[in-house]
Amino acid sequence: MKLYEALTEHLRGQINQGIFVPGDRLPSIRSLTREHKVSITTVQEAYRQLELLNLVVARPKSGYFVRGQAPSHPLPTTARAAKRPMEVSQWEGILQMLGADKLAPAFSLGHAMPDLTSDTLTPLLRLWARIARRGDLSLLEYDSLRGNLELREQVARLATHSGNQLDPDDIVITTGCQEALFSALKATTEPGDVVAVDSPCFYGAMQAIKANGLKVMEIPTHPEQGISLDALELAMEQWPIKAILVTPTCNNPLGYTASDAHKQALYRLAQKFDIAIIEDDIYGDLAYTWPRPITIKSLDTDDRVLLCSSFSKTLAPGLRLGWIAPGRFRSAVVHSKFVATAASSTLPQQAVAAFISEGGYERHLRKMRGQYQRNRDRMLPWLEAHFPAGTRISHPTGGYIFWLELPEEIDCVELNRRLEGEPYCIAPGALFSASGKYRNCMRLNYAEGLTAQTEQALLSLLKTFPEQNTSIAN
Amino acid sequence: MKLYEALTEHLRGQINQGIFVPGDRLPSIRSLTREHKVSITTVQEAYRQLELLNLVVARPKSGYFVRGQAPSHPLPTTARAAKRPMEVSQWEGILQMLGADKLAPAFSLGHAMPDLTSDTLTPLLRLWARIARRGDLSLLEYDSLRGNLELREQVARLATHSGNQLDPDDIVITTGCQEALFSALKATTEPGDVVAVDSPCFYGAMQAIKANGLKVMEIPTHPEQGISLDALELAMEQWPIKAILVTPTCNNPLGYTASDAHKQALYRLAQKFDIAIIEDDIYGDLAYTWPRPITIKSLDTDDRVLLCSSFSKTLAPGLRLGWIAPGRFRSAVVHSKFVATAASSTLPQQAVAAFISEGGYERHLRKMRGQYQRNRDRMLPWLEAHFPAGTRISHPTGGYIFWLELPEEIDCVELNRRLEGEPYCIAPGALFSASGKYRNCMRLNYAEGLTAQTEQALLSLLKTFPEQNTSIAN
Repeated sequence: MKLYEALTEHLRGQINQGIFVPGDRLPSIRSLTREHKVSITTVQEAYRQLELLNLVVARPKSGYFVRGQAPSHPLPTTARAAKRPMEVSQWEGILQMLGADKLAPAFSLGHAMPDLTSDTLTPLLRLWARIARRGDLSLLEYDSLRGNLELREQVARLATHSGNQLDPDDIVITTGCQEALFSALKATTEPGDVVAVDSPCFYGAMQAIKANGLKVMEIPTHPEQGISLDALELAMEQWPIKAILVTPTCNNPLGYTASDAHKQALYRLAQKFDIAIIEDDIYGDLAYTWPRPITIKSLDTDDRVLLCSSFSKTLAPGLRLGWIAPGRFRSAVVHSKFVATAASSTLPQQAVAAFISEGGYERHLRKMRGQYQRNRDRMLPWLEAHFPAGTRISHPTGGYIFWLELPEEIDCVELNRRLEGEPYCIAPGALFSASGKYRNCMRLNYAEGLTAQTEQALLSLLKTFPEQNTSIAN
Repeated sequence: MKLYEALTEHLRGQINQGIFVPGDRLPSIRSLTREHKVSITTVQEAYRQLELLNLVVARPKSGYFVRGQAPSHPLPTTARAAKRPMEVSQWEGILQMLGADKLAPAFSLGHAMPDLTSDTLTPLLRLWARIARRGDLSLLEYDSLRGNLELREQVARLATHSGNQLDPDDIVITTGCQEALFSALKATTEPGDVVAVDSPCFYGAMQAIKANGLKVMEIPTHPEQGISLDALELAMEQWPIKAILVTPTCNNPLGYTASDAHKQALYRLAQKFDIAIIEDDIYGDLAYTWPRPITIKSLDTDDRVLLCSSFSKTLAPGLRLGWIAPGRFRSAVVHSKFVATAASSTLPQQAVAAFISEGGYERHLRKMRGQYQRNRDRMLPWLEAHFPAGTRISHPTGGYIFWLELPEEIDCVELNRRLEGEPYCIAPGALFSASGKYRNCMRLNYAEGLTAQTEQALLSLLKTFPEQNTSIAN
């Protein structure tokens, strides 16, 4: 056991025994270094782990406090292991949710759109206008196949926050995280191969698995700890798995962040079986703890991790700007990018590069992290008061998405079908599985909190549920 | 033989016999309708065919004139048929030409970049700035998966110029024509299938064939008439060809436009073998004749043609905006778009939609068509005077690209390697073949005409050729 792990356990014990109760200020970093004869880094790391466990909360310039309350509601259950690799289906349900065939798509309770109304985004639009007015010819040209150099430099600098040492040359700009995931899969597999995923798993990643002629092996995933390493190892022994695709930080849809130790163990497992890790970090910069959690990529000593991210969740999806640090797979990723899109749009790249270098991105992140965390904490009691007994809710560590596991008799796929024609729709959990799991689950966005529109849609949704006499809170 | 074909032959005979000589005004449309008892449409079509044959030229409000001179130089030869389907390689050469690994890529004589300096593009940048200043939230959101509706409406309207009756619902906006071609291949084939292509063939299309695990069957292509239908039919009888990928209008790189009759015959062949046609029309709006030539898609009675195009060659490649009308393959194309990029960038879509609806696109096209045709006619004598005897040059019917077939002893692949470190590079013909053809060929851009930079690079290039005593002109 490492020093910081021992200290984490010690402090956790004290909280569990009630030596420190909710609201108590915990010992300062300085006093703990003296008391335990460890470095400042060790104490900081221990507190970071306790934050990830939702036991303590940091208040700027005041120190660490025992969290007011640990999640009082039951968390989602961990799904059973899939029996075998499966083909992905579920495409029709996704099209319905995206409203791709409708002129006026319904308001989606389950979409993964950030809050776009923040005034910290205004400077981005102003930069856009300023760059367009400048009328530089380079705006009209292809940018480099690997992406705008200034943007890659900024991405490399930001990546240090999650422990990465990337060179701008290690990065390829993509058309959203979707192209990053797609090219990562293309670079690491051949048709017929199997990809292991955490489950539930983002449906866009699973559709990219399908489009590459691959099968998916769904691995049980704990709603606080992450993908089951035992189940993963068993699957790798049994099946010809070529890559592991995971979202270990601010997971979509479960919201957990795996511990550093878990990330390290997952990486060792990939080393042992000599396979690639595709790490989706799209919500990572929206973790409620700061400094933000590290990536698996930051532990990568032999270039087997393809780190995928984007500005779609942190800034705006309409930019269609993402990036990938593909490690040893760079050449195949560049080929995939060339054949699929040739380059990303020039003006958005220039504007975002300028926005980051002027400090706008980090200013925006600081604000949104606080807002999203507050929205989580305000919305939870409402959900507990209104949703039927037996409902389980995730406890997100970042981002703005809840995962709701409803009583078993509620079939969200069927429910969404019945909502056809209503002004709102939901994101049924079944979209997040290749094997028909999670039919009684749904994803719920809280980026803007409980707006009037969201409240109205939720109340209307609740009326469609079978009669209940109790709520979670009772 | 149709009426217009008979009339075309009649007038062609009169020109060939010298009854009308270069510069002569030809009979008016009205007089021909009276003389031959045919409709105005028939006469117009006959003149359009003669224009495509480079025999006559239309002068606004004056009528039709015998062209000053038919191409005096020898046209490129038609390559022999490939023996069998092949895998595509050539990736390294493309990376070198794109300068993807360099900080300051060399000036490429062979790139396919339009002239971006035209003042008719200024309103597009102004619209960009105006839309960004308006700060509408929709700018930051995903646009529809199938693309901005207003843009699709404008694309459908413009497509009537090439004879198409498309509904906005028939169109999917893509990240450049590259994504259109990529998704068209994905939608019509399975890994291991064979795709027939005109040869030489755009390297981006061939790399997309490679990335989809397909083989390519190169069909001999005549530099004025297009893909050999006999060779194509033979190949389809012999091999499991699933799709034909052609650029029949303003071909890249050969510059020809196939006649309507040829397009019709190609379509019938696809019907006979029940396979799809992927029609790349990216340069079609830059045809020097107006109304512009029809597409194969316009003849499509059973939705088997996937028409691919883009604003990269007509407006600016940095937009990364293209489109596809995928016919019966729409659902698979939408899936491919979802997994590869999810959507195209919102602001460029809104800006281009507004630019087209304000008339800016058609104004720009009118100017560029004239400029590119003048540049072709001015640059040809220079090439004839400077390039060695034995050089053959294409006679483009639109766009801004020459295809040069140099004397056999000149190896352009080797040549480009030797240019490493020079301030310019070429696009070796070998990139346009999967089977090592066209090593003595190169593509040459004339969008901006013979600029000082181009002339200097060409003169420097000519010095690297083996000693010659004569030029084409001698």
